[in-house]
Amino acid sequence: MAENTKNKVSETVIRRLPKYHRYLSELHEKGEDRISSQELSDLTGFTASQIRQDLNNFGGFGQQGYGYKVTVLKSELENILGISTVYKTVIIGSGRLGSVISNYRGFLESGFEIVAMFDRDERVVGTYIGEHKVKSVARLEEFLKKHPEVSVAILTLPKIGAQAVADRLVAAGIRGIWNFAPEDLEAPEDVIVENIRLTDSLLTLSYYLTEQDR
Amino acid sequence: MAENTKNKVSETVIRRLPKYHRYLSELHEKGEDRISSQELSDLTGFTASQIRQDLNNFGGFGQQGYGYKVTVLKSELENILGISTVYKTVIIGSGRLGSVISNYRGFLESGFEIVAMFDRDERVVGTYIGEHKVKSVARLEEFLKKHPEVSVAILTLPKIGAQAVADRLVAAGIRGIWNFAPEDLEAPEDVIVENIRLTDSLLTLSYYLTEQDR
Repeated sequence: MAENTKNKVSETVIRRLPKYHRYLSELHEKGEDRISSQELSDLTGFTASQIRQDLNNFGGFGQQGYGYKVTVLKSELENILGISTVYKTVIIGSGRLGSVISNYRGFLESGFEIVAMFDRDERVVGTYIGEHKVKSVARLEEFLKKHPEVSVAILTLPKIGAQAVADRLVAAGIRGIWNFAPEDLEAPEDVIVENIRLTDSLLTLSYYLTEQDR
Repeated sequence: MAENTKNKVSETVIRRLPKYHRYLSELHEKGEDRISSQELSDLTGFTASQIRQDLNNFGGFGQQGYGYKVTVLKSELENILGISTVYKTVIIGSGRLGSVISNYRGFLESGFEIVAMFDRDERVVGTYIGEHKVKSVARLEEFLKKHPEVSVAILTLPKIGAQAVADRLVAAGIRGIWNFAPEDLEAPEDVIVENIRLTDSLLTLSYYLTEQDR
């Protein structure tokens, strides 16, 4: 969950926006010109009134009896989601997960550019992960001081030590953390922490499977 | 989201259970004997009354003025989440992500055991990913027929073709899908689909960063 934010639109609404964007991109690729909230409802599974309400938070963009113009709604969603803003990003943790993440093509499409990778294991420091030469976490502050344009960090560390690294990132001016470590990171209010919780997701699946067996 | 389930406790509550379990495991490792809902509240960030309410859905387990016994609550949560039930699992997609996932130690801890990996790229069929020799997706049905004990599939395919593979898995009797493909899979009501949406999560982070700049 993105915690500690100062905006007014509810997080539940925000988390639906990427899905709208996903479908608008598909419609755009298919050359569709416009779409009604009812058709969007059939695609997304949200009700038409929910969709209109969600989009009204940002100005509406639709027209009664016409629906939404696909190119307009898509580009408005891109503005809202800040896709065109490129956030320079570092990855902390060059293990398997870090290495997959560094190759993830969704990044640049979503406006994140990986500029460096760090690891605390001195044995991998200096080796290459794709185009990135792994740097030592010991030199994190030095790097961030030289590159004040870096605003986001991705944490693919195991639990132990993740908070300590997060504290250092925050002290060095990082504004957003995409956290894969299975730990609830503490961060000041103005730092955005977005968590990917693989184990929590697996356990949810396990719950529902087990529930069926009861 | 885990869709199409028949249970009565709300999904929001279910999604908090893994977090409770995570903290209970930590308390257990630290040798703590008992914990009050207020202390659990300090740890998790949920209110004490919320926690009591959540756990009351499953029978309570607490005692006024005493709190919860750590070992008891932990093991009750493990029962509820079905952690002790081992679900035999196949991975479809032996690319980078599939290969990381196959090595993820959270699996067995969460009750999932990877028994085979499949890929549609004939060039990787027959190669090894860890201990698993990659099998051809063309032989998926044959394998699942021989191994009816397999009930879960992990999809680490790109978007194109994910639905077609999901349809085949469902037809072959798979009951749960952990889906990393950026597509909203359609599945019958009694098949649990749990999605990990990396791009949606990134875009949420992007939204909150952009929001701060406005």
